[in-house]
Amino acid sequence: MNSMDLLKQRIYTAQLNHTILHLNRNDFIKQAGSIDTNLYLIKSGTLRVYNIIDSEEQCLYFGHKDSAITAIDSFFSEKRSDYFIQAIKKAEVIVIQKNTFMEFINSEKENLQLWQAILVEIIQHHIERGQDLLTTTSADRYTRLMKRAPYLFQEFPHKYIASYLRMSPETLSRLKKS
Amino acid sequence: MNSMDLLKQRIYTAQLNHTILHLNRNDFIKQAGSIDTNLYLIKSGTLRVYNIIDSEEQCLYFGHKDSAITAIDSFFSEKRSDYFIQAIKKAEVIVIQKNTFMEFINSEKENLQLWQAILVEIIQHHIERGQDLLTTTSADRYTRLMKRAPYLFQEFPHKYIASYLRMSPETLSRLKKS
Repeated sequence: MNSMDLLKQRIYTAQLNHTILHLNRNDFIKQAGSIDTNLYLIKSGTLRVYNIIDSEEQCLYFGHKDSAITAIDSFFSEKRSDYFIQAIKKAEVIVIQKNTFMEFINSEKENLQLWQAILVEIIQHHIERGQDLLTTTSADRYTRLMKRAPYLFQEFPHKYIASYLRMSPETLSRLKKS
Repeated sequence: MNSMDLLKQRIYTAQLNHTILHLNRNDFIKQAGSIDTNLYLIKSGTLRVYNIIDSEEQCLYFGHKDSAITAIDSFFSEKRSDYFIQAIKKAEVIVIQKNTFMEFINSEKENLQLWQAILVEIIQHHIERGQDLLTTTSADRYTRLMKRAPYLFQEFPHKYIASYLRMSPETLSRLKKS
């Protein structure tokens, strides 16, 4: 079990103050330009985080059942976020405010240790992602992601994975067949 | 003063066990393939961290006087690192082993809080960097970096900054003039 799963169990046991969002397919939790420091725990459904760079949608993160998702640029800085968070499928999401969450983190040493481990996991994710983005050939980017997160290909529409991989859906489709 | 500066002051006051490296221009602290979990505090000189992707050197991080540097892929995972760390100019570097450093971090609540703030700063750096890498036009990448870290252009050879910006030195030179 990873650190986020362990922390989530503790969050559920502690019954932190929260609200619940019921989203239909394509509903937005947020759009670019807003400040959003909430933590979103996904009970069911799938979501994506994306932004628009040079007039193109860029898929940045995927959220699936039992995972957590945030507008990470806003969550830490508490500034305006460039990100969109959108349901890909009908979804149920638990919303916890950052101050509620951070109070909980700071209330017990074990929570703090788990949070520290999660921060390190986020860094490691971004190191991997940075390497992805510097990998020039589409085939190598595809292979890296297949190795790191094969479940994405089962759970998410391939047009979004193609965007995450910085390639056209046609190129992804060709790579899958080869 | 940022969190790393504050933590460094505490490291110096605590006189943690360390060694000192004296590097000449172009000397390597490490090459790709080794495990390296040390923390390097730069007393003087400049260094770069790079790796080789698709046969090309990719500048990943810059280290200058009073900053800290690591093979970050190895520091957290304790696995083999793909990174090279090389002195750009004659440099003096304080080397602190990870276990010494982490014992120090865990020894006091204030250290832990600073370390947590540093982890968040590292995440924020990587979020920015991810946006850089997704920005398709060279001019926009140049403008972003000029805004975020103008000092780099004073301190580092422009061939390395060009590599960091994923453009040729000629393109960078043209953008600087425009």
